[in-house]
Amino acid sequence: MPNWSDPLPMKVVRVSCRQISPRIGDLAANVEMSTEAVRSAIAESADIIVLPELVTSGYVFESNAEVASVAVTLGHPLFAGWANALSGRRGSVVIGGFAEAGPGGEHYNSAAIVDADGVVAVYRKTHLWDREKLWFRPGERLPPVIDTAHGRLGVAICYDLEFPELIRHLALAGADLVAVPTNWPLVPRPTGERPPEVVIAMAAARINRIAIACCDRLGAERGQVWTGGTTVVDVDGWPAATAGESDVATADLDLGAARVKTLTDHAHAFDDRRTDLYGGG
Amino acid sequence: MPNWSDPLPMKVVRVSCRQISPRIGDLAANVEMSTEAVRSAIAESADIIVLPELVTSGYVFESNAEVASVAVTLGHPLFAGWANALSGRRGSVVIGGFAEAGPGGEHYNSAAIVDADGVVAVYRKTHLWDREKLWFRPGERLPPVIDTAHGRLGVAICYDLEFPELIRHLALAGADLVAVPTNWPLVPRPTGERPPEVVIAMAAARINRIAIACCDRLGAERGQVWTGGTTVVDVDGWPAATAGESDVATADLDLGAARVKTLTDHAHAFDDRRTDLYGGG
Repeated sequence: MPNWSDPLPMKVVRVSCRQISPRIGDLAANVEMSTEAVRSAIAESADIIVLPELVTSGYVFESNAEVASVAVTLGHPLFAGWANALSGRRGSVVIGGFAEAGPGGEHYNSAAIVDADGVVAVYRKTHLWDREKLWFRPGERLPPVIDTAHGRLGVAICYDLEFPELIRHLALAGADLVAVPTNWPLVPRPTGERPPEVVIAMAAARINRIAIACCDRLGAERGQVWTGGTTVVDVDGWPAATAGESDVATADLDLGAARVKTLTDHAHAFDDRRTDLYGGG
Repeated sequence: MPNWSDPLPMKVVRVSCRQISPRIGDLAANVEMSTEAVRSAIAESADIIVLPELVTSGYVFESNAEVASVAVTLGHPLFAGWANALSGRRGSVVIGGFAEAGPGGEHYNSAAIVDADGVVAVYRKTHLWDREKLWFRPGERLPPVIDTAHGRLGVAICYDLEFPELIRHLALAGADLVAVPTNWPLVPRPTGERPPEVVIAMAAARINRIAIACCDRLGAERGQVWTGGTTVVDVDGWPAATAGESDVATADLDLGAARVKTLTDHAHAFDDRRTDLYGGG
């Protein structure tokens, strides 16, 4: 039986994105701010907490040396700090982005999944956006799906979301919710429209019958303006919470609905795929 | 050089969807109405005309005998009628759905691409929705991409759109625009939201840098209410025209933009795919 067909009884999960703004190159300040964000989310009874991409480092790097100055391994105390901030509500998890120092001196744009006991899993971004390619090595593995007390959790980072192949992989691997740390550069859009990345998240959620929680940034860094598009999308593909100009988007989601891929008596979101024609598991 | 990287000079193409309502089981009336719709679109200088799914037959069948009574082969004069309606504006094409009679007595939910000389290509729907499975055999080939005077045209039918694998296939095969004859059953959505199928089309267009023209239906048939969601989506993923309560959605699109898959100096919508991790061409 595939993972996505295990029944999960109706389960309301509080998902909270904390749209905070790291300071480029200031690891200590960013660790403190991100840990405080976890703590405040726990105070609001969050089950799953999502932080932005590269939240401990900032994004708009100017040199490899600058990346190296903020890159950390999984042994860095920041992860124990996040775990400690979760300890008041065991079972809760945080997903946050960081610059990872690899074993050979290379760097990755990574996201950690951390629970009260420490790091559960790490994902190295596989689709690097634009100048990230100057600083980071692409990950060599698709993201994991992790069993948690609050359902199965997948992770993707920013530009990954624009590759439906990756989200499909996570859904087929059983993800109920995909946490997406992002830094969305502001792009033009027609008046009244949502950011295009949110439209893409809505479609991906609806098609795969999963929730998607995107945690973006506000403000600007070295001239790069961010979208502030933080949005929690439900299993039907509709925005359940947006941060707007605030720091927080929190929604209570029924993740049990993510295990139901049956659409009608004769239609099924996954079984109806024509893998005989286009491949895929 | 892959198809999608051939340059196409800035080319404004008039795409017109005609959201007409066939009468279930009345082939003669539907042929007349659909031919008239082609004629009226040509009178408005349309280059690419899209009609609904199963426009010559209706949709909510009650028996195989009923399907058989309206199923046609490509030799049926209706296609010559569509071709003739196009003859005042050579180079224009129409894409419309019909019930196809197969060689062994089986039926397909098909779409024909027709130009002033006749049928150019036929696609048999590969993802059958719900009770369509009672009446139709699924197609055994992915849809074609056809070179026309107005750019490269792909086709998909209704539920096909909810499988990003299929749209990706068409985009990689060089489609500038995907025509999507549909019959969208009305489903609940939050106030102020677009139909979910339109959100899915917007995301698919944006991700693949192609235009998508969905021609839906209005009204009801045997109790089934339709969405009336007809929308022409541009290469950036934004709706350029919607029919709303009218019969027509027409937009002038720059299809030359569909040949540009480069997003930034260091980012490319297709080259950035990680086919080493998830397969695909």
